[in-house]
Amino acid sequence: MITGHGDDAYQFNYEIVSNFSSNVYNKFDLKDLKEYLWANIASIHSYPEPDALTLRKLIGKKLNISSEEISVTNGATEAIYLIAQAFRGSKTAVVIPTFREYEDACEIHEHSLYFIESLDNIEPDTQLVWLCNPNNPTGKIYDKEYLKGIISSNPNTCFVIDQSYAAFTENKIWNASEALNFNNVILLHSLTKCYAIPGLRLGYITAQKDKIDLIKHYSMPWSVNQLAQLAGLYLLENVTYKFSDYLPESQRVQRQLSEIFGIKVYMSEMHFFLCQLEQGKASDLKKFLIETEGFLIRDAANFRGLDASYFRIAVQDKMNNNLLIKAIEEWTKLSF
Amino acid sequence: MITGHGDDAYQFNYEIVSNFSSNVYNKFDLKDLKEYLWANIASIHSYPEPDALTLRKLIGKKLNISSEEISVTNGATEAIYLIAQAFRGSKTAVVIPTFREYEDACEIHEHSLYFIESLDNIEPDTQLVWLCNPNNPTGKIYDKEYLKGIISSNPNTCFVIDQSYAAFTENKIWNASEALNFNNVILLHSLTKCYAIPGLRLGYITAQKDKIDLIKHYSMPWSVNQLAQLAGLYLLENVTYKFSDYLPESQRVQRQLSEIFGIKVYMSEMHFFLCQLEQGKASDLKKFLIETEGFLIRDAANFRGLDASYFRIAVQDKMNNNLLIKAIEEWTKLSF
Repeated sequence: MITGHGDDAYQFNYEIVSNFSSNVYNKFDLKDLKEYLWANIASIHSYPEPDALTLRKLIGKKLNISSEEISVTNGATEAIYLIAQAFRGSKTAVVIPTFREYEDACEIHEHSLYFIESLDNIEPDTQLVWLCNPNNPTGKIYDKEYLKGIISSNPNTCFVIDQSYAAFTENKIWNASEALNFNNVILLHSLTKCYAIPGLRLGYITAQKDKIDLIKHYSMPWSVNQLAQLAGLYLLENVTYKFSDYLPESQRVQRQLSEIFGIKVYMSEMHFFLCQLEQGKASDLKKFLIETEGFLIRDAANFRGLDASYFRIAVQDKMNNNLLIKAIEEWTKLSF
Repeated sequence: MITGHGDDAYQFNYEIVSNFSSNVYNKFDLKDLKEYLWANIASIHSYPEPDALTLRKLIGKKLNISSEEISVTNGATEAIYLIAQAFRGSKTAVVIPTFREYEDACEIHEHSLYFIESLDNIEPDTQLVWLCNPNNPTGKIYDKEYLKGIISSNPNTCFVIDQSYAAFTENKIWNASEALNFNNVILLHSLTKCYAIPGLRLGYITAQKDKIDLIKHYSMPWSVNQLAQLAGLYLLENVTYKFSDYLPESQRVQRQLSEIFGIKVYMSEMHFFLCQLEQGKASDLKKFLIETEGFLIRDAANFRGLDASYFRIAVQDKMNNNLLIKAIEEWTKLSF
């Protein structure tokens, strides 16, 4: 387990005023969900369904696929670790820079790993490819037609496509039903990011039944707790997310930051994006922002392919975004 | 993942009046815990600590051991699956009849498994032994001095001792600090059973640091959700469990059931115990009890070493215990 993921406020003795460090929109209003959980709090006294059957059925209904083409997981993270087990020892490619857990899970389960920056560089005999789409931390979105071409021309390679951030893009990416046309595609989904509930741990896998059965062979019972399962049932029936105001604000923040001397912004269509310092270390900027403003950003040094000069920002509300821009500008003036 | 664990009320279209099927005391009053979780419900918007550092520190303080000798897990079940991974391919013994997940987890991770009914039958070159103490489903409690002898005379064998039911016995079994004297002992602990919170999923492992490090190598981050971590912090600081009234009631129910013609009771010092039908199937009795009384019992047919004639009961409150005894007697009269 690496340390240094985002949302690491617990490591600091400062009150966090605004959290730009995890790719979760923290201003989502979930009063009704919370009241629903409170109304059902007595459910903590019973075991959860061992494989979340009721929630699988509801997801299946919503996505127009079978509950047997779904596995509900303890966040997308459990999905990653189960797939790494199911493909133990495979020749495996990870498209970088990206979320670190693909690599970590595959190392634990003795994959023969290599790293590529483009899907055009998949080596022969590769059994598994990990792709985050939209990608964390870059916000890059792969075109669906391009992906179809790559997947069709590599029929013996299984593609795990992590769509945890799907809800935040208006771009056309896969839906679960389309992806089921391919036997060599496994989609990962997260409810953590779009509903702002990373504390509950809830995700799911969709794939053809033979792939789901393979993954379930490695699953343990009860991995998703009662309140997480209940939250999933409630949210899918009652809450529609809408991020249309959020993406233009991300564009605005990216433009303004890119005008600061010494900051390079890697433009992204998403609500989060990668920045690079032309000099100095992101860890120093992070420390400054916590101490002066109570703002938490993601030091991106531990993404493979990046270094200590990179950091990631997930935009929040306009007022705090503006304060962040000002504080970063101030730091560059003090440091450069 | 096997089906047919206890607490499977969700599989039936009957209201469950009393649940004798899981080894959890369902009458525990946890109003304060629930209010604490409600007061902290906004924590679902943040990631949990990836490896439950704060909770590990508190457990360490309470048990007088180091937080580095502890790993907090998503129920004891995650602990079982992680240990099975860490000892992948080992020659492994399971003391039966017992909780099925030891066997399942080891099969997934390609252990060379064998089954023994006594610790005196450990074969040479065994690398791992699973023992549930007190044992589920029999309630058998292994004497500490006897265990010390076995463990000392098998220094190259690692003993995983699952003490999930430790809180329910007044017998002297290991505490975490004592067990740390042995490099070849790993203790499993559950907060699920003693605090009646199986819906939250919370357990932990204690062992010498090198064993914990080995197990943590296989761990994923964030496996224990926010509300489970918070519940652990609250319960350890504020709630003391007390089962002194509960054990004599178990003795009473065992005696009364043993007087019914056609029912054999395997006497247990615990709050749960195993019964055997002299004729007929436990699954039929289970169906009868659900349909006539809304009582759920555990069909024990899927415990290795047992068969379709066995069932397990965890006693509940006196009124329902009496109704259960009466209903079982009625079924035997109708069936035999």
